[in-house]
Amino acid sequence: MKAARIHEYGKPVVLEDIPVPDIQPDEILVQVKACGMCRSDAQLIDGYFRPFADIPTPITIGHEISGVVSKIGKDVPKKAGLAEGDAVGVAPGWGDGVCRHCLVGNTHICANVRWPGFGPYGGFAEYIPVPARYLVKADKRLKFEQIAPLTDAGLTPYRGIKKLRDAGALGPDRVIGVFGIGGLGAYAVQYARLLGGGAKVVAFARNADKLAVAKENGADHVIAIKNKTSEAIATELEKAVGQKDLDAIIDCAGATEMMELAFSLLGISGHYANVGLVGERISVPLLPRVNREQTFHGSYWGNNVDLAEVLSLAAQDKVHHTSKLFKFEQINEYLDLMRAGDIIGRAVMKW
Amino acid sequence: MKAARIHEYGKPVVLEDIPVPDIQPDEILVQVKACGMCRSDAQLIDGYFRPFADIPTPITIGHEISGVVSKIGKDVPKKAGLAEGDAVGVAPGWGDGVCRHCLVGNTHICANVRWPGFGPYGGFAEYIPVPARYLVKADKRLKFEQIAPLTDAGLTPYRGIKKLRDAGALGPDRVIGVFGIGGLGAYAVQYARLLGGGAKVVAFARNADKLAVAKENGADHVIAIKNKTSEAIATELEKAVGQKDLDAIIDCAGATEMMELAFSLLGISGHYANVGLVGERISVPLLPRVNREQTFHGSYWGNNVDLAEVLSLAAQDKVHHTSKLFKFEQINEYLDLMRAGDIIGRAVMKW
Amino acid sequence: MKAARIHEYGKPVVLEDIPVPDIQPDEILVQVKACGMCRSDAQLIDGYFRPFADIPTPITIGHEISGVVSKIGKDVPKKAGLAEGDAVGVAPGWGDGVCRHCLVGNTHICANVRWPGFGPYGGFAEYIPVPARYLVKADKRLKFEQIAPLTDAGLTPYRGIKKLRDAGALGPDRVIGVFGIGGLGAYAVQYARLLGGGAKVVAFARNADKLAVAKENGADHVIAIKNKTSEAIATELEKAVGQKDLDAIIDCAGATEMMELAFSLLGISGHYANVGLVGERISVPLLPRVNREQTFHGSYWGNNVDLAEVLSLAAQDKVHHTSKLFKFEQINEYLDLMRAGDIIGRAVMKW
Amino acid sequence: MKAARIHEYGKPVVLEDIPVPDIQPDEILVQVKACGMCRSDAQLIDGYFRPFADIPTPITIGHEISGVVSKIGKDVPKKAGLAEGDAVGVAPGWGDGVCRHCLVGNTHICANVRWPGFGPYGGFAEYIPVPARYLVKADKRLKFEQIAPLTDAGLTPYRGIKKLRDAGALGPDRVIGVFGIGGLGAYAVQYARLLGGGAKVVAFARNADKLAVAKENGADHVIAIKNKTSEAIATELEKAVGQKDLDAIIDCAGATEMMELAFSLLGISGHYANVGLVGERISVPLLPRVNREQTFHGSYWGNNVDLAEVLSLAAQDKVHHTSKLFKFEQINEYLDLMRAGDIIGRAVMKW
Repeated sequence: MKAARIHEYGKPVVLEDIPVPDIQPDEILVQVKACGMCRSDAQLIDGYFRPFADIPTPITIGHEISGVVSKIGKDVPKKAGLAEGDAVGVAPGWGDGVCRHCLVGNTHICANVRWPGFGPYGGFAEYIPVPARYLVKADKRLKFEQIAPLTDAGLTPYRGIKKLRDAGALGPDRVIGVFGIGGLGAYAVQYARLLGGGAKVVAFARNADKLAVAKENGADHVIAIKNKTSEAIATELEKAVGQKDLDAIIDCAGATEMMELAFSLLGISGHYANVGLVGERISVPLLPRVNREQTFHGSYWGNNVDLAEVLSLAAQDKVHHTSKLFKFEQINEYLDLMRAGDIIGRAVMKW
Repeated sequence: MKAARIHEYGKPVVLEDIPVPDIQPDEILVQVKACGMCRSDAQLIDGYFRPFADIPTPITIGHEISGVVSKIGKDVPKKAGLAEGDAVGVAPGWGDGVCRHCLVGNTHICANVRWPGFGPYGGFAEYIPVPARYLVKADKRLKFEQIAPLTDAGLTPYRGIKKLRDAGALGPDRVIGVFGIGGLGAYAVQYARLLGGGAKVVAFARNADKLAVAKENGADHVIAIKNKTSEAIATELEKAVGQKDLDAIIDCAGATEMMELAFSLLGISGHYANVGLVGERISVPLLPRVNREQTFHGSYWGNNVDLAEVLSLAAQDKVHHTSKLFKFEQINEYLDLMRAGDIIGRAVMKW
Repeated sequence: MKAARIHEYGKPVVLEDIPVPDIQPDEILVQVKACGMCRSDAQLIDGYFRPFADIPTPITIGHEISGVVSKIGKDVPKKAGLAEGDAVGVAPGWGDGVCRHCLVGNTHICANVRWPGFGPYGGFAEYIPVPARYLVKADKRLKFEQIAPLTDAGLTPYRGIKKLRDAGALGPDRVIGVFGIGGLGAYAVQYARLLGGGAKVVAFARNADKLAVAKENGADHVIAIKNKTSEAIATELEKAVGQKDLDAIIDCAGATEMMELAFSLLGISGHYANVGLVGERISVPLLPRVNREQTFHGSYWGNNVDLAEVLSLAAQDKVHHTSKLFKFEQINEYLDLMRAGDIIGRAVMKW
Repeated sequence: MKAARIHEYGKPVVLEDIPVPDIQPDEILVQVKACGMCRSDAQLIDGYFRPFADIPTPITIGHEISGVVSKIGKDVPKKAGLAEGDAVGVAPGWGDGVCRHCLVGNTHICANVRWPGFGPYGGFAEYIPVPARYLVKADKRLKFEQIAPLTDAGLTPYRGIKKLRDAGALGPDRVIGVFGIGGLGAYAVQYARLLGGGAKVVAFARNADKLAVAKENGADHVIAIKNKTSEAIATELEKAVGQKDLDAIIDCAGATEMMELAFSLLGISGHYANVGLVGERISVPLLPRVNREQTFHGSYWGNNVDLAEVLSLAAQDKVHHTSKLFKFEQINEYLDLMRAGDIIGRAVMKW
């Protein structure tokens, strides 16, 4: 089968032919139909994660995977409810199943977690073996190029915004800011409306084309931040929504400087959820965090329950996808577009 | 001024002329512009509450009050932000301000609470004195006949549904049932959508006209329950939403038999919020509550924060009002319609 | 092996010899060392559960099980961390592993749940096969007769009191009432202290010997309720703790009349967790539940996480066991004592 | 009356005679009996807060105040329950009473907040006028030198640890680290036990004398961190409690470098509450916060409810005070000891 693999960090991925993988008794072989491209694919190739986990090559990249059930391992229980031909999304974050986090369903933060696309198998390939437990069945109404990005770009901000909602930060007279309108942010503005209980949604980004996506996807207001001071932005915010600060922030970028800007706009008792990994450090003044009683929530990807929920929202046609389809052969080209920040919404490879 | 007062329990209220009331230094005199009629007005007259609190007559009824600031007590602080002519809604549940519940804003459950319409002053009158703290300013875009029912009919189910949401009972693959589509239920179906994060909303009532209101106000499905068994209703539910039970219930009626029906439809880990007082007892089987780990939330009216939130939703035009205007002189006539269950939505008196 | 089995509902259990059971590939054979006796064992025999689930005989009773790992199924993963000879407690409530409740660890409320002691295998036997996932390793310091009751009597009120704590009902100036001081209540008073954050603990029961256990186990006050009115009890409560009502209640009995008494003592914003199944119905006045905004939590047994937590508390020597050891041959005799309410604390069979 | 006032930032405070202040109608004149000395007193004098709020001199310092009711303003309501001679603690953080935060009792984070000791009146004086709403009555069993530090040193970590508990970070098999064992930390180790539900408590500090206080006040283990690497400390932690990371952290110092150390020890899904203001910035790696889903809670001082709770715990004799009494005349001397970090526990001035 065809697969896109890292053989050497820092080099383009190699598109090559490799054997279709075997499956373990508790696994299912998924025929990949679509795979989204994530900023972290480029970061993996470029070595961003090596200080934390130096994964040995070859690595088949790609972790936003949809496909159909192709072969079922002999120990997969019937009650799993999966049959050949079923459309599925692949839940990321395969835990050991026995730790405290796995026991409550947070398999994606298991200390012994495995991720597709960060080791031998990934989604930029024709097939991938997946433990049955990590497949979520998708409604017939959904297309594979919709399901794929919902397993990360459309999943990660959903979990982050749920944390904001569950912390009590959203509601009718609140304002939520969405920072960074890339692949994740295009979904985030929609969840901010769906879960906001009437909160006003304001999108912040440097790039006008991306702000246009935010507007299209339901942001009440958009603010271009390039070359503006925090004070100027606060004034613009006040004009738009009647208050100079934000009650909640979902940061889809995580760039160090933008975080400092965003925190400068966070109000008293404000909640900040970060799901982006562009920067390497958080660096912000301490006092306002404390005497304004602000909360920072690190939020990472999502679990099976979260994935089932976004698939359900999408099946109800409550989620709009901003995506750009491309072919397997174009992977390296699209990785470069990704690095340059030149993709609007999500780039998705379709077989 | 004109006022509608109970002089004798069980008798029609007397429409009479009485002096405009004085105000205390921390109070504001509100010129009433509209007052909604609540089932509890009839219950008060009919003696339902006497076993719990035997309020001495005369009683000016009416507790769903909107109006304008007419005179401001000398100790009302400037920071309260109220000026003569301001449009206001009257928050119900005036607490003592010092107890544990008042300290966290739940003045409406203070042990020493006073309620407008359940003592000397009420909203079926031309003026009412209100402690400044219990007035919430309303947006200019709102009409007085919209503000008035938002202080109870439109407030009470909002608080109840917030409890369901905060308990984790709502979400994209959940189903919420709204039981009883009277004055409160007409609002409840809307909040179920606004706060449901994608939950399907199913309305249950006996009366087809009321179910039509639910449908109009956004219920995904409606089910007529008259003369049907619990099993038949469960089957109908399954056909509509793909599951035979409900993950959450807001009960706007509180009728003993309907509660037993509703509980029979409540699923594992289901949450039930009751805001209705039609019946006198809860009487349901014990075992399913326990081994299905269900939760019953008593929810009562709302506090200042809740009222500010519903007024904000309404000002954003996110709430539809189903109401029937009537005149002061028609109060007793409308009380009878209320008793007969013949009012669709909320009856609101407008001066 | 020896086993105690129901052959006919309503009759004494039969103590007989049956073959040692086989295990499935994902199961472990546990050699039972001790098994606690629960009121629900008697209820099962006496037919209480038949209207809900008519389990076919023969049934090996007993669900409070401790023992040692005797044989490990071939598919049990190494990461499960279990070896022959390990001391284990058996988590009750074996779910299907795929439903929404199982995904977040609440396997005990799975719609397809299986319980040891409510079907072919139970703890009043020499061996029992258990899915590896439902064994929790116990610290060497614990005795088997301590571990056994911690899987139900010592687990169930722990989960209930966690619900009270997580609902915000406990704290330094709150009072928690423990109703029913049988096998569960003897543990409940201890958890009320451990999780209460300074709350005063008051035990309520009919029987003086049981109240003595409560006192011994850390209750600040005890109140005998036999033949007393609600008002008399409220007065006694006020004398003891300075307030006439309770902020939180854990009801370990669930007897219909005692529930009505307990609810009459529940304060504004009070939380009531029920873990007992003595009665068949909840029947209480509606209005005070609503206008005092009270919450009823059904709480059932516990999950793996809860069990790991109580075993951890016990291993730290923070839990005192009130138990009475008996022999396999005495099962029917002890069932009768149980029915008569004549057991102080928990009766535990030890091989 | 005598008062200690800042006349010039960066200089010793001036001990002088000034008139006894008048009170407003809603205020109470408190005769100060004791006043704790806080690191922020020195920070205020030294100009740490000037970039955020440049308070005009003269400033009477001191915000940990206990005393007796000396004179009651004419508009103070009877229901406030205060009489001349009553022992009181002064709640810090006097809000405007009308904002969203005040409405739910968080007056201490009101945007228009006033603090005693940060303006004209403070506790290092013989009298102070206080709005009646911000006095909390104290039990007769408590000494004034106990009440005073409970309004900040004993209040602030309590609120922080409540946040950790309410976030689900504590429990029987969890480990909580207390960083910084000064005036606040000496209380923090105790609350970690009282609210920890069985969590192990480990204290971390540079100074052996302070660790001795932690041990005395109930820490299960103490770890000296001076000149040790993060790895060495993790190893020491593992030896003590069986795990190399912490599930929860209360940071009573907030020193930038110690925060980086503390965060390096925080486990998956860990919660970190910061209540200290020693440093000026938070600066930590981003990735581990996100992919371990950690949460940072800024927590500030406390509100009336928190203060009532700690006073209640203390009245039950559940709190041990580590304090050093000094005289009004010694204020500048003790400020220098404070700056040098040479005070064990809390220094409290007693008249």
